[in-house]
Amino acid sequence: MIKPRIVIKLSGSLFNFDTNSVQLNDYIQLIKKISNVYQPVIITGGGKIARFYINLSRSLGMDESGLDLIGIQVSHLNARLLISGLRENCYPLPPRNLEEISVALLSGLVIITGGIYPGQSTNATSALIAERIGATKFYNATDVDGIYDSDPRANPAANKYDKINVQDCVSILKSEKSMAGTYDLMDLISLKVIERSNLPTVVFKSTVDNIEKLVLDNVKMGTEITI
Amino acid sequence: MIKPRIVIKLSGSLFNFDTNSVQLNDYIQLIKKISNVYQPVIITGGGKIARFYINLSRSLGMDESGLDLIGIQVSHLNARLLISGLRENCYPLPPRNLEEISVALLSGLVIITGGIYPGQSTNATSALIAERIGATKFYNATDVDGIYDSDPRANPAANKYDKINVQDCVSILKSEKSMAGTYDLMDLISLKVIERSNLPTVVFKSTVDNIEKLVLDNVKMGTEITI
Amino acid sequence: MIKPRIVIKLSGSLFNFDTNSVQLNDYIQLIKKISNVYQPVIITGGGKIARFYINLSRSLGMDESGLDLIGIQVSHLNARLLISGLRENCYPLPPRNLEEISVALLSGLVIITGGIYPGQSTNATSALIAERIGATKFYNATDVDGIYDSDPRANPAANKYDKINVQDCVSILKSEKSMAGTYDLMDLISLKVIERSNLPTVVFKSTVDNIEKLVLDNVKMGTEITI
Amino acid sequence: MIKPRIVIKLSGSLFNFDTNSVQLNDYIQLIKKISNVYQPVIITGGGKIARFYINLSRSLGMDESGLDLIGIQVSHLNARLLISGLRENCYPLPPRNLEEISVALLSGLVIITGGIYPGQSTNATSALIAERIGATKFYNATDVDGIYDSDPRANPAANKYDKINVQDCVSILKSEKSMAGTYDLMDLISLKVIERSNLPTVVFKSTVDNIEKLVLDNVKMGTEITI
Amino acid sequence: MIKPRIVIKLSGSLFNFDTNSVQLNDYIQLIKKISNVYQPVIITGGGKIARFYINLSRSLGMDESGLDLIGIQVSHLNARLLISGLRENCYPLPPRNLEEISVALLSGLVIITGGIYPGQSTNATSALIAERIGATKFYNATDVDGIYDSDPRANPAANKYDKINVQDCVSILKSEKSMAGTYDLMDLISLKVIERSNLPTVVFKSTVDNIEKLVLDNVKMGTEITI
Amino acid sequence: MIKPRIVIKLSGSLFNFDTNSVQLNDYIQLIKKISNVYQPVIITGGGKIARFYINLSRSLGMDESGLDLIGIQVSHLNARLLISGLRENCYPLPPRNLEEISVALLSGLVIITGGIYPGQSTNATSALIAERIGATKFYNATDVDGIYDSDPRANPAANKYDKINVQDCVSILKSEKSMAGTYDLMDLISLKVIERSNLPTVVFKSTVDNIEKLVLDNVKMGTEITI
Repeated sequence: MIKPRIVIKLSGSLFNFDTNSVQLNDYIQLIKKISNVYQPVIITGGGKIARFYINLSRSLGMDESGLDLIGIQVSHLNARLLISGLRENCYPLPPRNLEEISVALLSGLVIITGGIYPGQSTNATSALIAERIGATKFYNATDVDGIYDSDPRANPAANKYDKINVQDCVSILKSEKSMAGTYDLMDLISLKVIERSNLPTVVFKSTVDNIEKLVLDNVKMGTEITI
Repeated sequence: MIKPRIVIKLSGSLFNFDTNSVQLNDYIQLIKKISNVYQPVIITGGGKIARFYINLSRSLGMDESGLDLIGIQVSHLNARLLISGLRENCYPLPPRNLEEISVALLSGLVIITGGIYPGQSTNATSALIAERIGATKFYNATDVDGIYDSDPRANPAANKYDKINVQDCVSILKSEKSMAGTYDLMDLISLKVIERSNLPTVVFKSTVDNIEKLVLDNVKMGTEITI
Repeated sequence: MIKPRIVIKLSGSLFNFDTNSVQLNDYIQLIKKISNVYQPVIITGGGKIARFYINLSRSLGMDESGLDLIGIQVSHLNARLLISGLRENCYPLPPRNLEEISVALLSGLVIITGGIYPGQSTNATSALIAERIGATKFYNATDVDGIYDSDPRANPAANKYDKINVQDCVSILKSEKSMAGTYDLMDLISLKVIERSNLPTVVFKSTVDNIEKLVLDNVKMGTEITI
Repeated sequence: MIKPRIVIKLSGSLFNFDTNSVQLNDYIQLIKKISNVYQPVIITGGGKIARFYINLSRSLGMDESGLDLIGIQVSHLNARLLISGLRENCYPLPPRNLEEISVALLSGLVIITGGIYPGQSTNATSALIAERIGATKFYNATDVDGIYDSDPRANPAANKYDKINVQDCVSILKSEKSMAGTYDLMDLISLKVIERSNLPTVVFKSTVDNIEKLVLDNVKMGTEITI
Repeated sequence: MIKPRIVIKLSGSLFNFDTNSVQLNDYIQLIKKISNVYQPVIITGGGKIARFYINLSRSLGMDESGLDLIGIQVSHLNARLLISGLRENCYPLPPRNLEEISVALLSGLVIITGGIYPGQSTNATSALIAERIGATKFYNATDVDGIYDSDPRANPAANKYDKINVQDCVSILKSEKSMAGTYDLMDLISLKVIERSNLPTVVFKSTVDNIEKLVLDNVKMGTEITI
Repeated sequence: MIKPRIVIKLSGSLFNFDTNSVQLNDYIQLIKKISNVYQPVIITGGGKIARFYINLSRSLGMDESGLDLIGIQVSHLNARLLISGLRENCYPLPPRNLEEISVALLSGLVIITGGIYPGQSTNATSALIAERIGATKFYNATDVDGIYDSDPRANPAANKYDKINVQDCVSILKSEKSMAGTYDLMDLISLKVIERSNLPTVVFKSTVDNIEKLVLDNVKMGTEITI
């Protein structure tokens, strides 16, 4: 009777000073559709508005972990945009920590939240949430279309992995040259969490279509991280 | 030993997508200076970023009091910008309600916060805070330079009051034609609060210079609301 | 499956030093009956006990917004009286703000609460709650039987409106002479909220019978505020 | 530099439907005077208003521990009456549990609170607070003038103790016949707490004069409970 | 549709430095079975780990009510052990007070918690919870097999009661000689609560088998406290 | 007037089932001494008791991030041991997140806390706290005496660094073979935080003597991480 739970991390780039309601509405309608089959927890990044507040605060003298807290708050504002459109279909607030998430889950509704812990990327937070709720899969929607053996922006001959073992992924992440390119995809905490919990994960380019194909139509896409 | 307390409401227009650290730093330095003489509570409006989130959320279907809550959250992000620059000189968080403000006040530090209650303008909230903390004066920094007998933007012959009795101010506010123009200055709840607590209030154009002159140099400016 | 939601504001005069359980039980039984058809949020006023605490605290030196907080707390004690009788049929606590109300609502149970924000009448609070929960109607049970074109206590020839447009209602409220009489019925914040959310509202004399007729039997009564 | 801390429990009978500001003001002025020498934590009982709400709620069907919670809330309203008069001299809120009390204490201000835990008399709560804050003495102001060897209301020949050992006090409390009379003075939890922490305690008739003599003039009065 | 609610207090001796998962799993499986018929609230004691922390803290200088708070925290860690095994079948957190318990109850799930109020044994807390939730029975699983007319460890001829009236139980508890032996079974607050709420209670030796027989098979065992 | 702030992370190995008050008291006396010169924030690890609860909970089925939460709670119990001995010299509670820490800091007292965020080691948490409070130095007391170029337990010829650049430290951490040995010393989040905030850090073997020499006598010891 309880629907399987999944975690979908939405790229922060969805949230910007020129984001409009049509774009967001496409995501909202898809989330409603997904919620017929799964109970999804959606994590929104902070995006450009977060960077605006963070840069301004940093230049005024705020410490780095204080900046993390500011970024988290912007990601929660972004979460409220999706809540605005999902209304009765979602929990009415973005939960603020893992314990609130596990209580919110009892409602059976879609959960929308943002970052929750300073010092952690929303990727890492999403993986922790996936652990906590026993998610059957972690969908990491990003700005690139998967994990490459070297930075695809620097190296046109870079090869995308269809599948990659979590430990190989750690190795790539640790090799100096690819760090810049993959950092935004998966960081070491996310990978540690994926590994310790055997969490099936896929990294792919964030579009409404791609999410729908992956989550609902089971199409292969992006890079699957295996254990 | 306890410094007199004052409330300064900063116009939301200070906070915008192109706000830079130099502008904010001028305010921050002034607040530091003021804090040698007074314990100020500073209330930040939501400004254009609040309106961006509110418009987007409304178009997605959020109810109006839910939009108020979103506006409050943006005003708190704006508060954190000032906290970034004031650091040790201010309370490290924006308090979230009147009770938290009265506890924060015990620190002796500058308090920076934003809106706190849905259904109320930051003007009204500022007046309530002024009541709660026993402020000796409420400085309402706005986008116009005082209260007029008719809307100065529509009527070039409009006269600015140097002083106006709170009940006359209510009458102007109630007369249909001036409503649009004065709404942003003072709304009825603010005036009710000012009246019930005999709260000395001044409405004036928000600039660093004006605030300094009014608060520290006791220069007359804008419109004083008398009881 | 989800019942339509309504807001019923109960006149504070129901709660007094000589209130007895028979009177309250009539309301409780009616609320149970209503909950078969609707999910009601009931807002209790503070009444005479609130005024007792407020007057005593004011004479001892409490500031006005501090008095608002005291009045809110008494209204919550009054809410607990109804909770005592509704037991399993209602949410076990009076929620303390709009966000707690939206979570409590997920229980599907009757919600009983009191005032929530200082500086606002329970009328205004009730209208905000009605917005937040998407209420199909706001039933404002008061001490008079509707809205008049002038104060019925002063002017025996005063005419009661069956219907009145929200903007006409604002005009009456703003005209000096009728203010005293109508203030307790609807204040400007309530009306602003009713207007901004197109909230169907009826103002009527608070009796168990009247509430039953209006809510369950759809009988016309009191004054309907139209948009 | 830190003042010694004491606990004063005020009889609930001070708070009633006809309590006036003159009576309360006498206590408030005395507390200010005491705060020059000590940092007092004052605990207010619920009194007749608590009993009114409790009786009404019980007759409507509230369970007993739910009634305890209601009594606690009324005692906090009573605490706010004293806070109204003490203003800057006291912590602005009644703390809600032992942890909040230990934080509030850091302010150096007078702390005013009421009951905090269901299932416990305000006597017991006061003794726990005295433990927590390292109070040098627990002043228990009650409706009788000390502890008797039998119920003074039933037995005119009853003898008042000037001093009594805590274990003898337990014995009296346990003997059936005196239970009714002494129950309100000290209950078993209070005595257990007094014993386990060697807490110097005095039980005496609550008047402003008596509190002043005992606390400030070190006059012997009532019954001292020794370890 | 709502299952009857019961309270089961588990002896703290279940939680120890050598507790293993097999022992706990037996309890967990039983609780799952019980939850098919009842909605149980399970209260875990602190046991030896609590005593370890309490003794160490006391020797370092912590006050007694501070030690109560530490004991409560360890009992909550113990509660999390059971939550670990019950997962989807129980509320995901141990509620921290009576109000949180009444909200958690709405989930329809098993509730696991520990001590909640300083100055009270987990027996007393369990009885308060039983009151609050309208439990049909309070199962007090202890280290002895019932209530005796004198301490069975000191007096081999001591007789166990099959039934005992709550007031006789108070008398035994009050008689000096039996105090030590019975203290851990039932203390005076528990008995006061049982009496004021006519709460059916049984005291018995804590084993998985005994709990199953008593709760599910309605076998008579231990000592029943009657009103 | 404000003392410089430092962060001291105490090895979890200090807290164990056989920890006694003499050992802890040595640390407590040292912390008092340090607090004459600095305002320290002390972070306690979870140690063996945390591992006991974590292993037991894991074997019962708790998810990994739920286990992190359990470990955090044990570290807070350990924090309370130090609070027991420091009493008036420290903040009375372990703060639960960065925001609570920044408020607690205003007291001017020593702050004792444990882990705060799941998915992060107490090292990483300590570094975040150091950032937040503007610590002049982060003292990381561990079970080994510094950072080596390879694992000293496996390789007797391993060389300890007196100083190491943070980026070299990252490289060592990333090289497979040394990972096991250095993991407990510094993990990647800690190093990222140290780097982004130019946080002076020293890693050394945790003894009372060593902490005293490093913090108060400015003796060089262990490995300094430079930027």
